[in-house]
Amino acid sequence: MNTKARVAIVGATGYGGAELVRLLANHPSAEVVTVTSERLAGTRLRRDCPWLASDLVLEAFDPEKLDVDFVFLAQEAGFAMKHAPALLKKAKVIDLSADFRLEDKEVYREYYKREWESPGLEDQPIYGLPELVDRDSIRKARLIANPGCYATAAALSITPLVKAGLIQGVPVIDAKSGVSGAGRSRKETDYLFSEMTSNFKAYAITGHRHTPEIEQTAGMTIRFTPHLIPAARGIYSTTHVQVSQGTTQEAIIDALTQAYAGSVFVNVVDQTPSIKQVEGTNRVDISVDFDARVGFAVISSVLDNLVKGAAGQAIQNMNLMAGLPEETGLPLNGVWP
Amino acid sequence: MNTKARVAIVGATGYGGAELVRLLANHPSAEVVTVTSERLAGTRLRRDCPWLASDLVLEAFDPEKLDVDFVFLAQEAGFAMKHAPALLKKAKVIDLSADFRLEDKEVYREYYKREWESPGLEDQPIYGLPELVDRDSIRKARLIANPGCYATAAALSITPLVKAGLIQGVPVIDAKSGVSGAGRSRKETDYLFSEMTSNFKAYAITGHRHTPEIEQTAGMTIRFTPHLIPAARGIYSTTHVQVSQGTTQEAIIDALTQAYAGSVFVNVVDQTPSIKQVEGTNRVDISVDFDARVGFAVISSVLDNLVKGAAGQAIQNMNLMAGLPEETGLPLNGVWP
Amino acid sequence: MNTKARVAIVGATGYGGAELVRLLANHPSAEVVTVTSERLAGTRLRRDCPWLASDLVLEAFDPEKLDVDFVFLAQEAGFAMKHAPALLKKAKVIDLSADFRLEDKEVYREYYKREWESPGLEDQPIYGLPELVDRDSIRKARLIANPGCYATAAALSITPLVKAGLIQGVPVIDAKSGVSGAGRSRKETDYLFSEMTSNFKAYAITGHRHTPEIEQTAGMTIRFTPHLIPAARGIYSTTHVQVSQGTTQEAIIDALTQAYAGSVFVNVVDQTPSIKQVEGTNRVDISVDFDARVGFAVISSVLDNLVKGAAGQAIQNMNLMAGLPEETGLPLNGVWP
Amino acid sequence: MNTKARVAIVGATGYGGAELVRLLANHPSAEVVTVTSERLAGTRLRRDCPWLASDLVLEAFDPEKLDVDFVFLAQEAGFAMKHAPALLKKAKVIDLSADFRLEDKEVYREYYKREWESPGLEDQPIYGLPELVDRDSIRKARLIANPGCYATAAALSITPLVKAGLIQGVPVIDAKSGVSGAGRSRKETDYLFSEMTSNFKAYAITGHRHTPEIEQTAGMTIRFTPHLIPAARGIYSTTHVQVSQGTTQEAIIDALTQAYAGSVFVNVVDQTPSIKQVEGTNRVDISVDFDARVGFAVISSVLDNLVKGAAGQAIQNMNLMAGLPEETGLPLNGVWP
Repeated sequence: MNTKARVAIVGATGYGGAELVRLLANHPSAEVVTVTSERLAGTRLRRDCPWLASDLVLEAFDPEKLDVDFVFLAQEAGFAMKHAPALLKKAKVIDLSADFRLEDKEVYREYYKREWESPGLEDQPIYGLPELVDRDSIRKARLIANPGCYATAAALSITPLVKAGLIQGVPVIDAKSGVSGAGRSRKETDYLFSEMTSNFKAYAITGHRHTPEIEQTAGMTIRFTPHLIPAARGIYSTTHVQVSQGTTQEAIIDALTQAYAGSVFVNVVDQTPSIKQVEGTNRVDISVDFDARVGFAVISSVLDNLVKGAAGQAIQNMNLMAGLPEETGLPLNGVWP
Repeated sequence: MNTKARVAIVGATGYGGAELVRLLANHPSAEVVTVTSERLAGTRLRRDCPWLASDLVLEAFDPEKLDVDFVFLAQEAGFAMKHAPALLKKAKVIDLSADFRLEDKEVYREYYKREWESPGLEDQPIYGLPELVDRDSIRKARLIANPGCYATAAALSITPLVKAGLIQGVPVIDAKSGVSGAGRSRKETDYLFSEMTSNFKAYAITGHRHTPEIEQTAGMTIRFTPHLIPAARGIYSTTHVQVSQGTTQEAIIDALTQAYAGSVFVNVVDQTPSIKQVEGTNRVDISVDFDARVGFAVISSVLDNLVKGAAGQAIQNMNLMAGLPEETGLPLNGVWP
Repeated sequence: MNTKARVAIVGATGYGGAELVRLLANHPSAEVVTVTSERLAGTRLRRDCPWLASDLVLEAFDPEKLDVDFVFLAQEAGFAMKHAPALLKKAKVIDLSADFRLEDKEVYREYYKREWESPGLEDQPIYGLPELVDRDSIRKARLIANPGCYATAAALSITPLVKAGLIQGVPVIDAKSGVSGAGRSRKETDYLFSEMTSNFKAYAITGHRHTPEIEQTAGMTIRFTPHLIPAARGIYSTTHVQVSQGTTQEAIIDALTQAYAGSVFVNVVDQTPSIKQVEGTNRVDISVDFDARVGFAVISSVLDNLVKGAAGQAIQNMNLMAGLPEETGLPLNGVWP
Repeated sequence: MNTKARVAIVGATGYGGAELVRLLANHPSAEVVTVTSERLAGTRLRRDCPWLASDLVLEAFDPEKLDVDFVFLAQEAGFAMKHAPALLKKAKVIDLSADFRLEDKEVYREYYKREWESPGLEDQPIYGLPELVDRDSIRKARLIANPGCYATAAALSITPLVKAGLIQGVPVIDAKSGVSGAGRSRKETDYLFSEMTSNFKAYAITGHRHTPEIEQTAGMTIRFTPHLIPAARGIYSTTHVQVSQGTTQEAIIDALTQAYAGSVFVNVVDQTPSIKQVEGTNRVDISVDFDARVGFAVISSVLDNLVKGAAGQAIQNMNLMAGLPEETGLPLNGVWP
């Protein structure tokens, strides 16, 4: 690639948008040229985000003025549905919201409490989870639905097992997330430092929006319970599955290992992973334990919710769409301690 | 009670022992007169534990010299088995280790990798979980096996449901603990601040020692997975159970509410609890969610592993043994934030 | 005391107000009978504060309906000035805000950006720092200005040294506070968990409102710089002072030791303290280091900003006003770990 | 540079060594070919450091077998003095310990409690703080003494002010560090997660080893007090200086701005910085506040102790020694939140 891909980030001061800026600063073949914020248009990005060593000035969102190859949308639900049709005339679009993730629009309405409205785009979005979706469909896509953070961790844990017929009953996915998953603009008391430090709790125990997204990818009904960890980043997904008659630990490990044989970012490891070992990276580390006593496998998977769970996976999709190796510019080594 | 009960704490500089000192400082009817530490005998307790406003001087453990009504043992596995026979001649004994918890000595050997050896005491220990055990048996006991922290949280979540026949299949208990559960003398790299801060992980996914203890109390086989939270204190137990045909959320709530109707410390609450809301208290807060879609109940329970999970429950047992109201001197209001 | 003192807490769902509820639950001679909240009047206190094991129902503030001996005001600046005159006709008042702390009303206006307006009360408030103020004046007071958290830590560190003439130049007070000092209703991005965890920073480097309060107590000009610690509770005050010619470490220690000889809560210790060792207590631990090379003493002092820095000190004042021993019902043993 | 520089890291499983591996993984012109650990020789680096996506196998240290251009020494005090003479015959050496930092060997003996012994190397080490040292001397060096973390933050804050004659009296440097500064092999109770979380304290208030290092660079006597922050990474240095007669805030800012005009990593900013905004980067952000009331300037500076305070600065020195732009491969955008 002789020239760098030109990139716009819509919603650059949130955690997802700012993480795109951070990661793309090290990308050899892409350049962020436009960053937007309605609230802060006209100010330097680094004033609101002093961790970013950028001279970019925030602009108001204006599809007409965009002159880019890729648009990343890091906005609340509803925004992408509204603006995608216009944007797609000018650029490829990668949406980090849930607007284009669910194929069944009734399910979208049930879980997101709003109508799905983006006429003409029903069949166009590709669900951008490269390790479980045909990569060629991503390469050819013009509109990517970037997966949810929990959904990425959970779907990678169980989909190969479902396909191999190794599971019986309802998988119990007990997932835990760092607090940044709530975003930067959530100001409820619950998200104050003093309330969450040294704390831990479940939330949205029934009806969490990632439930149907996991089910769509895995192809089976699941039980999903999310919790908040007193950490900024990281998802730990503990999936408890009753295995089919005769299934061994080796069969479970084989199914996962083969599924991710060609994937640089997803690895089956032999030590129980921790969330910090993938902090700042686009990796997913997965381990398998087996309790023969009760016939259960326990699949542990970890990722950084802002990287493989959001901005990193979005760049992985961009790389594929741009004809680049999918790992281009994406970190593999964790920030520790 | 005219005079205060005299108390010895064996192993007073560990987290459990020091918490006994803290809690008993506010107890109207008990007084700590002896604190022991092999390593630090001869020094003031507050030198090693500067949070304690105590003038007590640590002594070496010497059963002959003890002149007390109650001995609390806060030591590693094996210590209580060895010393209980001699101690019981002089005082009532409350053991915070696992030595006397398991009725089946084969199971003890399997999980603790040592022989159970305390001849003559096989039938004497009472498992001191007052909300699930006949309180009269505790009142009359001379030797209490104080329950494990995870085991307390988990057993309180499911035992009433088992007894009411509301569960089918294998309950999945996905539990999370603050790091103090590892004790003050564990010096592996894993427990360093820099390794655990902002981190989260499962451990001992198969074979955790509290598994048989939970099963003994609940009366059924379970799947138990513990994790570490980056917090000093607190246990969050998420129990996922498939309910029997026709079981409703109300039936689950009723079973728990009735089981704990007379218990001041265990409460069924209508908001999902968090670990910090019980920090420093002897409370267990339990909530119930119900997923009719898949026929699962999710039971969340929280406690402070050093209070209701250790020192507080030990004092609750002492209160019963001393003929006092069981809540005497035990905190009900959490330290927040 | 045959009957318990009746207490009202105005603003019971903030951190200071809720801490009063927690501490008074263990007080043998006082009882909270009224708790107020404008926003949540009519709901149970424990709904918004699930850590409190209380059946009290929040009420709107109504001075006419109060039937109590003591009113604790835990409100924003301005509230106490406005309502104290009416309240004082019915009860003794302990104000946790800054309204009555500063004698010089011009200084109040400069630092708090509002007029001081409580005509007739100019001379009535007593600054309630018992270890540095004549306790008899507190015993006789009807209106207490409860000191600021930083001001308590800093004034206790240097006032005895100033009085003994041991300091030259401008003391540098470099103070650090847990985030709960910002209160429970501050919702700026800065106070979100994700922004403050693993973080640390100075703020209000010039013009912090506790500056004139410290100077008023200490009787000299100081340099005061506050910082935020990623912890919920605790203040660490590091005071760097150039000592007068010939001053020794012993002289510094003697001045502090003598000043606090009769004070159960303030202690000069010989190990550098940490904030957690006083968490949940009304203690202040102070240590002295001496750098003969440059002629500086470094005074370290720690306290819990919500206890000795707010609610605990307020109860200490109440105890004196009620003729009780000042330590009644106040914790001395820290919550650790 | 056609071929990549070959690099050995001696002590690769500690925090400094592992951070070198992480950072060099993204370096376009250097490649880590040898990693050593005495304890773990023969095992994969990623077994002990699961955050590193590396296939390297740890080796025992053997100077004879090294075939590299640069050796980074990340070992305890004493190691570099012993092995530098042999290593320098084969490669350029960058030492992250304190062995070669102090010019006055008497001072070394006093602060490090050991004799300085590296005969023949007295004049060879260059102190590798590029923003304050002649960069040409670094470019030509064969042996670099990589500066201490506190020393980097403190020296950058005051050295330009000393040179400009803007300070009077003794600067008070009140510094705070994340816990990783203690290293990965420190196993004292103090460094356990449960002891440090939600905690804060000063340590080594007199006699900290970075004191003479700061004085050597700044050229004046200072008062230095370090503290521990409950965070893994980050240093916050608050420097309180009485300014010379007539000095203005502008003069302070100008002195710093001009000193770092050509330095990409060190920036004078107009908002008070926080440690997290430089996490993972090689940046130092510095701000200036001015208290005209007492004639003090307060200089705040932040850095990541493992990057600009250790591994990043070491690579910056390597870049200069290799004839590369000094910023090559070093992150400028922080990991947030």
